[in-house]
Formats: sequence, structure tokens, C-alpha cells
Amino acid sequence: MNFRNTRITELLKIKYPIIEGGMAWVGTSELAAAVSNAGGLGTIGSGSMDRQLLTQEIRKVKILTDKPFAVNIMLLNPHAPELVETVIEEKVPCVVFGAGNPATFLPALKKNGTVSMAVVSSENLAVRLERSGIDVIIGEGMESGGHIGEVTTMVLIPKLMDCLSIPIVAAGGIADGRAMAACFALGAQGVQMGTRFIASKECLVHEEFKNKIIKAGIRDTVITGQKLGHSARVIKTNFAKKVCQLELTCPEQAEEVLIGSLKRAVLDGDVQAGAFMAGQCSGLIENIEGVGDIMEKMIFQAEKIFCSGQEV
Amino acid sequence: MNFRNTRITELLKIKYPIIEGGMAWVGTSELAAAVSNAGGLGTIGSGSMDRQLLTQEIRKVKILTDKPFAVNIMLLNPHAPELVETVIEEKVPCVVFGAGNPATFLPALKKNGTVSMAVVSSENLAVRLERSGIDVIIGEGMESGGHIGEVTTMVLIPKLMDCLSIPIVAAGGIADGRAMAACFALGAQGVQMGTRFIASKECLVHEEFKNKIIKAGIRDTVITGQKLGHSARVIKTNFAKKVCQLELTCPEQAEEVLIGSLKRAVLDGDVQAGAFMAGQCSGLIENIEGVGDIMEKMIFQAEKIFCSGQEV
Repeated sequence: MNFRNTRITELLKIKYPIIEGGMAWVGTSELAAAVSNAGGLGTIGSGSMDRQLLTQEIRKVKILTDKPFAVNIMLLNPHAPELVETVIEEKVPCVVFGAGNPATFLPALKKNGTVSMAVVSSENLAVRLERSGIDVIIGEGMESGGHIGEVTTMVLIPKLMDCLSIPIVAAGGIADGRAMAACFALGAQGVQMGTRFIASKECLVHEEFKNKIIKAGIRDTVITGQKLGHSARVIKTNFAKKVCQLELTCPEQAEEVLIGSLKRAVLDGDVQAGAFMAGQCSGLIENIEGVGDIMEKMIFQAEKIFCSGQEV
Repeated sequence: MNFRNTRITELLKIKYPIIEGGMAWVGTSELAAAVSNAGGLGTIGSGSMDRQLLTQEIRKVKILTDKPFAVNIMLLNPHAPELVETVIEEKVPCVVFGAGNPATFLPALKKNGTVSMAVVSSENLAVRLERSGIDVIIGEGMESGGHIGEVTTMVLIPKLMDCLSIPIVAAGGIADGRAMAACFALGAQGVQMGTRFIASKECLVHEEFKNKIIKAGIRDTVITGQKLGHSARVIKTNFAKKVCQLELTCPEQAEEVLIGSLKRAVLDGDVQAGAFMAGQCSGLIENIEGVGDIMEKMIFQAEKIFCSGQEV
């Protein structure tokens, strides 16, 4: 098994097949550039940005690195069409779509030489997107942080393998080389990580956010928004538990308190009203490390597992 | 990576490190003997059996195979203490505990030479049980069928590896050699499967149960009992959806309709009132095969992945 030269490293022209998950507020130009400089694919999480803000962030990344990077575009964002235009104009090497079907944007991106990827939580959309010309599918298991589907990584990745010919990246539950090796065994050619990169030196989130990940056990996340139709995995704080209760008794109020809750967690470390989006693998993360160290250790550990058969 | 000689095959004296999950009503003497004869560890799912019934089943297995087999004991069953005595008297090679803490039974089992295993959904109980002298921990991810916890296989197995020295078996989401290879990469020395063995020629469940698994997609299961404190993954039938609704509006009625629902699915294929317990990997299973073929293909596929790095 080759963890250094895969269809993903070739296509994206990166050193390691490791992608920074698209994270609103967390995925700044600084973190994206750090991941790209260290050999992975850094990603600007455009969240609810407009054209002007995204342009600024892209230009900052270009100053900080000459390596390939990506922009994540949430298709629920009403600015999405103009963000795609921005990506094209700025000649961003790669775009990752989430929360919707980006088929209409694919021809223009292909013409521009932009690699297009989409995050999916089941095979149905993936099959349609392959037909529409998407380059890569990122299969995200429900152990992942933030917005999630229902199927776990262990089941989703083999299913995608059975349905697609384009390369597949695995996401959800990946924090070290063991999970990376496991995902490659399932058929993935790359991995995407969010939570692990939040708990990195280069990430600019509030210290409280990093502390929450370090302290969390594997059962210390909870899914909010399940009853509201937008499930998101967050650290199980009192706020998160309150949201889950409100969903049952007063859904409108649950929606209300969720507005701006990620921003409050990221920027202010607000434990009273912040949603600390993070995956189950928080329970496997025990220290803040540099993004370069994180990725090098992962590759080394994954290679060792396939080499000797011994977990290291 | 060695898929044929592991700490599990050595300890249990079996050919393949593949264990039949403990399944009430499904794990009959016939299926257990078939799995053991084919080189795995067959398991009698004692469910709510009493001493007399279990003794009968054990003696039937002994007639059908001379290979090692296991008895699964649900600690919620009020007959559990006498079932442990039965296992000891009948010199059953292995016992698997579920739904509770079996610490008090371990000294007697050890004295008898019975290998003891316990199914866990988090590391806390596992750590306590290792101290109490359990021989093997089976970590079961929430993608699994039947009674489940919250953590997925991808996260649970590495966490158990970080906390334990005894061998670990992975369960949840495993239907083929890809998942087997992945679980070994995570550190497991064996795998446990339930759903895959239900969809086997030798399994005696109603044909409707097997059909439901074959037809299911990866998103066609649902978790019942979440609000009742006993989460169980089942095929998403109208009955299952009704139970989920009732949990919110009338929990007592939900409890009531669940009584006997597994039995109705297994014996009668009752789609109106039966709970077809099955895992997310139902969506990866496409045909009924013999248990021997299932296991041999798995080992072959897992070996090939570690050999060539190519998914087969």
C-alpha cells in the first residue's frame, strides 16, 4: 500500500494525500496555508462568506504558500454561485463542495482546470456527480464533526468503492495513521481531517476549543439538529444538551440559539452559547501538535502498519 | 499482516479469527455449528433462554461439530447466573457476555478453562474487565445491528488499543475482507459479524429476514429505543418508523410493541410487527452465501489488500 503516491497526490499535486476538511470560521487562510506548506491540501472554509471576503482569504493564502490549496463552498450559502466565479477568476487549484449538488458548476470548473471534489454522506449523490464530471468524492462518515449524515466511515467507503471509478477520499473518525491505514484498506486514496487540525498549533481557534477536543473522551460528542433536519456533531457541552432538549420541546427556539453558535465557539470559546463542532475522534486526540508533525506521523504510522502488521 | 494466525486464533484454537456475533433467536445450534465447522467461532445466542433450553442447544452443537464454539449470555437475562453454571458444567470452550458487567463470573470461568469475552461499546467497562481477568474484549461500533452504543468502529477500536493489552476483536460494519483488513489496521486481532451470517445459507431465520438484508441500502436501518435507553439498530420498516414515533409521543406503547418483535421477525418474517435487527453493512451484502465461502473470501480479500494494496 502506497501512502505517498496515490491518485489523490497526483491529481492535486500534493506531497501527502491528506486534506483539511472544510470548516467555516476554523478554516482560515493561515491554517490552510500551513497545511499546504506542510504537504497536505489546505482548505479555506468559506462558510457564509461573500465574494469580497473569499477573495481576501484566497489572496492571503497565495501570499503564505505557493503550494496547491482548496476552497470549500457550502451550497446552502446564497453567495455560492459568485464564490464559484471567484474560485475560477483567482485560479484556485481545487474546490470542494458541501451540502448540495454542484453539477451545474462543474463544466466551468473543468474548463478552468480546477479540480472539483464533493463531500457526500451516501452513494446516491456520488453516483450522479461522477456522471456530471466531478473529479473526486469525499465520503464522510457520521463519526465526523460538524454537519453529518447517518452512515459510518467503515460502511460508506466500501459502498462508494462499489459504485464509483473516480478516486475516493475518506473522512470521519480519522485522527492518526491507524485510521488512515484502515481507510486505505477500505479503498480510499486519501483522507480528510477536520478535528485533528483544529487541535494543531497553527489553528487560530480560541484555546477553549482546542482544550475541549483534548479533554473529550470518545463519547463526549452529541448530535444536535437531528430533529431539525440538519444534524451536526458537537462537543457535549451543557449548551449542546440544552439544544437537544429544545429540539423536542420547542424546535423554533433550538433553531434560534443555534444561529451564530459555531462562530461564538471558534472566536470567543463561548461555553455558554457556542457549538464546538468536533468529531468522535476528539477522544483519540491528546495534544496540540504542528500540522507538519501530525501529517508526517500519520504517514509513518500507516506505512508501518502495512509494513510490519504491528500497530505503532 | 497475518489474518490466519492471530492471538485470537491461538487463544480460541480456531482456523479463522472470525466470530459469529451473539444473536438471540438467530444464533441457533445449527448456525453456530456451521460457523465452527467452517473454521470460525460459532456462537449460541442464549437471549432469554433458561438453563434447560441452553443445555439442549449446547448438546445439539456438540453433536454437529467437534470444533470450539461459544455461548453468548445477555446479562440482562435473569437466568444469567445459571446459564454461566451451564456453560461451566458443559465445558463450553468460550463464553461471550453482553449488556452488563460479568466480573463476578470470571474467576469460576478461568478455573474451568473457559475463555471469557465481553462485548463493549466504550473503553470504560473494557478497562475494568481487563483488570478483572477477562480474556478478550469485543469492541462493537454503532453501525452494528441490534443493541448498540454511540461510538463507531473506526474510533472505538483505536481507543481500546490505547487502553488495553488483551486482544481486541472488532465488530460493527464488517461484511467483507475490506472491513476485516481495516479493523486489523486499527489494531484488532479478530472480527465479529452478525448481519453477514444472517444472510447465509445455513442461517435458519425466515426468508423475509434474509431478503430484507439483501435489499437494504446503507441508509436503510434506523435506531429504535434511543429515547427508551436501549438503542437497537433494525431495518427501516414501517414498524420501525412507527416505534421511533411512539418513543416521542407514547414511550410505554413503544415498549409494548417492541416486546417479542425480534422473535416475530426471525421466526415469522413478520413485516407488520417484527424488528429485523441488522447493521448498516446490510447495504453491502448482495447475496446469500454459505458461511464457509463467506469466511474464506473475506480472508482472501483481506490478505490481498495487505499484499498488493489493491482492493479486490
